[in-house]
Amino acid sequence: MCHPSNSPETIMSAWPDARVLELFNIEVPIVLGPMAGVAGVELAIAVARGGGLGSLPCAMLNVDQIRQQVEQFRAAVRGPINLNFFCHTPPQPDPERDAKWRAHLAPYYAEFGIDLNAQAPAVNRAPFDEATCALVEELKPEVVNFHFGLPTPELQARVKAAGAKIISAATTVEEGRWLEARGVDAIIAMGNEAGGHRGMFLAKTIESQVGTFALVPQVADAVKVPIIAAGGIGDARGLVAALALGASAGQIGTAYMLSPEAKTSAIHRAALKQATDADTALTNLFTGRPARGIVNRLMREIGPMSPFAPAFPTAGGALAPLRAKTEPTGSGDFINLWSGQAGQLATEDSAEAITRRIAAQALERLT
Amino acid sequence: MCHPSNSPETIMSAWPDARVLELFNIEVPIVLGPMAGVAGVELAIAVARGGGLGSLPCAMLNVDQIRQQVEQFRAAVRGPINLNFFCHTPPQPDPERDAKWRAHLAPYYAEFGIDLNAQAPAVNRAPFDEATCALVEELKPEVVNFHFGLPTPELQARVKAAGAKIISAATTVEEGRWLEARGVDAIIAMGNEAGGHRGMFLAKTIESQVGTFALVPQVADAVKVPIIAAGGIGDARGLVAALALGASAGQIGTAYMLSPEAKTSAIHRAALKQATDADTALTNLFTGRPARGIVNRLMREIGPMSPFAPAFPTAGGALAPLRAKTEPTGSGDFINLWSGQAGQLATEDSAEAITRRIAAQALERLT
Repeated sequence: MCHPSNSPETIMSAWPDARVLELFNIEVPIVLGPMAGVAGVELAIAVARGGGLGSLPCAMLNVDQIRQQVEQFRAAVRGPINLNFFCHTPPQPDPERDAKWRAHLAPYYAEFGIDLNAQAPAVNRAPFDEATCALVEELKPEVVNFHFGLPTPELQARVKAAGAKIISAATTVEEGRWLEARGVDAIIAMGNEAGGHRGMFLAKTIESQVGTFALVPQVADAVKVPIIAAGGIGDARGLVAALALGASAGQIGTAYMLSPEAKTSAIHRAALKQATDADTALTNLFTGRPARGIVNRLMREIGPMSPFAPAFPTAGGALAPLRAKTEPTGSGDFINLWSGQAGQLATEDSAEAITRRIAAQALERLT
Repeated sequence: MCHPSNSPETIMSAWPDARVLELFNIEVPIVLGPMAGVAGVELAIAVARGGGLGSLPCAMLNVDQIRQQVEQFRAAVRGPINLNFFCHTPPQPDPERDAKWRAHLAPYYAEFGIDLNAQAPAVNRAPFDEATCALVEELKPEVVNFHFGLPTPELQARVKAAGAKIISAATTVEEGRWLEARGVDAIIAMGNEAGGHRGMFLAKTIESQVGTFALVPQVADAVKVPIIAAGGIGDARGLVAALALGASAGQIGTAYMLSPEAKTSAIHRAALKQATDADTALTNLFTGRPARGIVNRLMREIGPMSPFAPAFPTAGGALAPLRAKTEPTGSGDFINLWSGQAGQLATEDSAEAITRRIAAQALERLT
């Protein structure tokens, strides 16, 4: 049942729903999940070479780094690029909460002989702002992917005027409707299985976050824009299932984390290889917002969700000295080991090969 | 793309994976989710008439009631019947924990003018035991579906010797492997979206419960027996997706709860119609074990998971007086409103029509 021709036009027309392919001008309905800290331009290039949408997480990059990586992408591959930005409101300083958090972590500071009052390093997750918007106007990415909602209407309008398609993640039907009402071009329906930060921005409690299987059809019923399913897609089975549920494409993150193009650390790679389906949890310990990661010592001992964790993105500051002390010994005890729930489906192939394999096997099942 | 013939043999052969169809001798790969308190023999008969596996939840029935309902099923329809039993160990009395739980609920008792020391009624969820095993030997159901693991090896052997196929739910890959090693004929891969009691029996924490989308392919990779996907399947999209992920059939519960054959109460029906995808949570308040239900006043005010809730199945005893006082006024504030996360996909059609529609539409997409 292999497809008779593999020219881009033929492949595109063979997919049951070409809306996302046409929207982004990509060959296969696969979007690289932007994974700040793990996914750099090399991974984006590899996925673009495989025919998918190459995504560049920008939240932990400065303007010069973003410009340099976009130039590197443009020089390497012809496809569109997707720049990912966070849309949080930076919190007001809250010394009292910070002190409580440090007190909560005091036993660990004592265990590793760290001064409890050591200066925490600056936290490096910046929201989309005037400077990054001007950069978007300069670089003209084909797609801009916001996380945690959308920026101000003014900034959003400038991004649109710069020619970028705008996408953002919904973790509930309500968030999907909210995004559609504000003019996004496609919605990432992000199920509870997804690794890294939950895109939730209207939803308040993680207890009611919705699994991919239930979320995708209900968002599809509620909105008219195309849907990109995210959370648990690790191979062709997942991509076919996502399309069956009503998505036009799948976003894949964790399944790329073992590829050579990913910047996943050795400790993180080892943890991913060992983790089972039931070894992840949502945690706010590392940044202050719920994100899915492999359960490690810190999450196990103080619980994955702590009322003491300071507001996003500052919670990690107090962990930095612990990380600095333990990571060099090969320990992942105090590191955010982001992963979705289908980490066991990840392979060590190149990201281009993973993309092509998932697309080809999905197409074979669909035709 | 409709199928040319609808004789049972042709339909069966048209499904991509006939293992569950052959195992149970059913026409369509749909298993009725056994929903104690909501699903009685009428619903089982209707689903069996639609070609699926009619399931009868027995945990809240006594031996005479089970016998009577099986006779009613046998008189009404030719298909196989699936008897569902819980496999918990009844807890030791724990007056101290019970007292703490009552103290925690004291403000509600006061609000409704109920004596805090009112006798709680007996709790009516019984585990599979000698008496029910003897009943299985007498009634010879084609399928027995255990929840919370399996009974003792002796009881399990007697059920097998009575000719029943044995199935049970896994909420993690580890539980799936455990069940396969103990000789089950099929495994229900129950994703976190599913309504009612989580089948979890090795998994300890709800934080790491796995979504259907991630669970099904990973269980499929880990075991050789066929898999029945459960959690979030509400229409043909879900059934097709479940099969794509590696399941041989889908278990459907919530999508039947508005059918006329379901015994769903008026309050529960009204709640189901209003609830969105993000309005459910896992809660231990009503029985002592985590189960997914629509968030109501009690869950919202004291939190859906309480460390004070007594062991399964006794937690509900202290709520009974509150329920007795509030339910007659049309209030669902103190009732277990079980639902999965895809309740919005439920329709008010007859359960036979729902079964036939989901199967026919799925088959149309698959062929």
